[in-house]
Amino acid sequence: MKLERKDLLGLEELSREEIEFILETAESFVEISERPIKKVPVLRGLTIVNLFYEPSTRTRMSFELAEKRLSADTVNFAASSSSVSKGETLKDTARNIQAMSIDMLVIRHSAPGSAAFLAGVLDCPVINAGDGPHEHPTQALLDLLTVKQRRGSADGLKVTLVGDILHSRVARSNIWGFTKLGAEVTLCGPPTFIPPEIESMGVRVSHDFDEVIPESDVLMMLRIQTERLDDCFFPTVREYSGLFGLNAARMAQARPDVTIMHPGPINRGVEITPEVADGPHSVILDQVKNGLAVRMAVLYLLSGGELKVEDAD
Amino acid sequence: MKLERKDLLGLEELSREEIEFILETAESFVEISERPIKKVPVLRGLTIVNLFYEPSTRTRMSFELAEKRLSADTVNFAASSSSVSKGETLKDTARNIQAMSIDMLVIRHSAPGSAAFLAGVLDCPVINAGDGPHEHPTQALLDLLTVKQRRGSADGLKVTLVGDILHSRVARSNIWGFTKLGAEVTLCGPPTFIPPEIESMGVRVSHDFDEVIPESDVLMMLRIQTERLDDCFFPTVREYSGLFGLNAARMAQARPDVTIMHPGPINRGVEITPEVADGPHSVILDQVKNGLAVRMAVLYLLSGGELKVEDAD
Amino acid sequence: MKLERKDLLGLEELSREEIEFILETAESFVEISERPIKKVPVLRGLTIVNLFYEPSTRTRMSFELAEKRLSADTVNFAASSSSVSKGETLKDTARNIQAMSIDMLVIRHSAPGSAAFLAGVLDCPVINAGDGPHEHPTQALLDLLTVKQRRGSADGLKVTLVGDILHSRVARSNIWGFTKLGAEVTLCGPPTFIPPEIESMGVRVSHDFDEVIPESDVLMMLRIQTERLDDCFFPTVREYSGLFGLNAARMAQARPDVTIMHPGPINRGVEITPEVADGPHSVILDQVKNGLAVRMAVLYLLSGGELKVEDAD
Repeated sequence: MKLERKDLLGLEELSREEIEFILETAESFVEISERPIKKVPVLRGLTIVNLFYEPSTRTRMSFELAEKRLSADTVNFAASSSSVSKGETLKDTARNIQAMSIDMLVIRHSAPGSAAFLAGVLDCPVINAGDGPHEHPTQALLDLLTVKQRRGSADGLKVTLVGDILHSRVARSNIWGFTKLGAEVTLCGPPTFIPPEIESMGVRVSHDFDEVIPESDVLMMLRIQTERLDDCFFPTVREYSGLFGLNAARMAQARPDVTIMHPGPINRGVEITPEVADGPHSVILDQVKNGLAVRMAVLYLLSGGELKVEDAD
Repeated sequence: MKLERKDLLGLEELSREEIEFILETAESFVEISERPIKKVPVLRGLTIVNLFYEPSTRTRMSFELAEKRLSADTVNFAASSSSVSKGETLKDTARNIQAMSIDMLVIRHSAPGSAAFLAGVLDCPVINAGDGPHEHPTQALLDLLTVKQRRGSADGLKVTLVGDILHSRVARSNIWGFTKLGAEVTLCGPPTFIPPEIESMGVRVSHDFDEVIPESDVLMMLRIQTERLDDCFFPTVREYSGLFGLNAARMAQARPDVTIMHPGPINRGVEITPEVADGPHSVILDQVKNGLAVRMAVLYLLSGGELKVEDAD
Repeated sequence: MKLERKDLLGLEELSREEIEFILETAESFVEISERPIKKVPVLRGLTIVNLFYEPSTRTRMSFELAEKRLSADTVNFAASSSSVSKGETLKDTARNIQAMSIDMLVIRHSAPGSAAFLAGVLDCPVINAGDGPHEHPTQALLDLLTVKQRRGSADGLKVTLVGDILHSRVARSNIWGFTKLGAEVTLCGPPTFIPPEIESMGVRVSHDFDEVIPESDVLMMLRIQTERLDDCFFPTVREYSGLFGLNAARMAQARPDVTIMHPGPINRGVEITPEVADGPHSVILDQVKNGLAVRMAVLYLLSGGELKVEDAD
């Protein structure tokens, strides 16, 4: 079986079957990172460009490690050192990169739709590593893989995303992913952080965290960006934390088998307390680990790789 | 045949035969970037340092891709993250790099002569990737290769460089290159952008773009740096564009087989309009593609590589 | 023989035997950088992350080259482009890196103890590339190797460290290293630059450079950071240079076989004049060269490598 797509731009356009196929392929890659020699030669001789217009540790590093584990050559570009400061358009940058005959492009950019725009310009596969508040598909895929490992399946699970939904590409991709895989998704946060008419995506909205905790199978705590304080989205960190932070007291109201997730980087003591982030229900580091496997799978499949039946679980 | 030089510092010191030899070698490398696996093992085990004291996307990336396609190991340094901020002299930086036994150095620096200075200090080959307004030899070589592909030969062609000649290393290297290969070079721009006594380089000067267009075989539009506005080199972008910008109206006055070039990054709507930049006469993306082949050729030849007769065209 | 340690955090915790073993291993690596192909496959398939929270040319480049010469894959992180700006704790960054199953971590950070902290969190080997003013063990090891090459042994040598001892991790690591190997260490500088009670480390203190020069076998000149001027540690560069700078006049008072060292980057004309830095007693570039060999040795040994008897000198 093959993934019949040139690019990975978002989870909105993927079918349930495609998502499940990527997850299966990723499961077969998890094991590679546990070997003493963590390298396979499947992308040997290919060059992948990582073009990051926004700062990133985890995602950039995860992609770079995934590429190197598949034996690809990598070239990194960060915005500050590039022609961006010279006023070149994104399209011209892309066409230049294309003229150099690269094999794949991973892009993070603050503009929603930037990855899709490049995918239309370039012949090579384009992977969206975050396009503004729009989508961050590999993050949602790694979250789905983590839930699959922990809970068997997302089908019928009650998944609650807590925090700044409005600005979160992670939330948007996860809403698409979890609803497609059959979960019931609830969004929870102060009204300023919930996009209007978001219910049309097939989700429920709550402004009362304590009400939704007891019925949630999965609590995904989103990162609060303290720079939003200046934009009047919430009054103080302390108030936010009191109403929507996950702490030991709230964990006592949760289901005994609740799964706690966070896409990172964590603001310890703001949206989640250290004892919960590091506690037995947390799968935060599994998410990071699975990120590598998911990115290896996406790179492999978009390069034309096939999942052999004996490799699938 | 071999290139009997340690370094590539500029086109001023190259003979016509050397330039033609590099172009022939580059032609044999163009094809490599069209293969599914774009890698050849000719520089395997060698380490090349890219030391960039000025921001760059295209040139840095082109060199890095060229090095990787030849299987070299690459180490990148950007000025902001280096010891420059600690006040170390360029000579000390160079001698330190030399003490680490690297195999080749690619340098971009704002000081004219910086590459030549390093070449005198270091035992390893040094490639000038731009030394202030002085020279940018691989850019001129890729321009010459593009003209050779499109027009057969530069001999007898009328080549017009348009714009800020004064601050342009691209212009200076191209003047050397095109005149050595037998072209007639005209420089065109406002008087503030034309260096005094530049005619001694064997070129003609014009301040009237409309006058030179009908007789030009090649129009190379140079990038206008809008920061020159503050330095009073030209009054407004609109006035510059009106007098020296290439647009559809001016293209109607050009020869039917005119070749349009631009070293990039393009200021769309300033020195060239989008319909001309993306039109049928434009070879701008060929220039980018040939940049990779030229850099592969230069790296290969300076490492002691030979062009076999059966490889040459 | 093997190095029975997970990490290299400082010279304080190493025994004389361990230091001598690392130096012997490094000597066997010096020769590799003199070969036409400077690569050996001992770390093939391993991924090493270089996490630099402070700017660095020489150390970062030396580590990266050492890793590549051992055929490891490298991933670089500089502070400015990382999640640091998002407020993530060092521990969370480390645990994330660990979750990605990397094989070794090289870290430079402004906080004393940061490397030791990470070593306690991570399963993989951690190498301290400088933790604030605390230690910089590979620098001291390369200094010891350079003295061993030049003088046969550090045993009984009179070694004088001159300059800003207070803020210098290089000084601290060298005090541990040279005293363990049997040298007599003197610290020389203005009182504001000498830490109180430093004599408890087994060293002598002098504030009179001219007094200590004639009896010193090794003079290690430390870099003066001119930003200390603002902090009132010394009145002017000229005064510092007059009292503690090494120049031709002072060299005339030195022993005829004196060895001049500097960890770089050099402030020419401040702590050392160009004719001394580039003169026949200077081993400054040998230090840089040995840095590569020492780092290859440390990487090799911490990955579980053994020194074969026939390889040792």
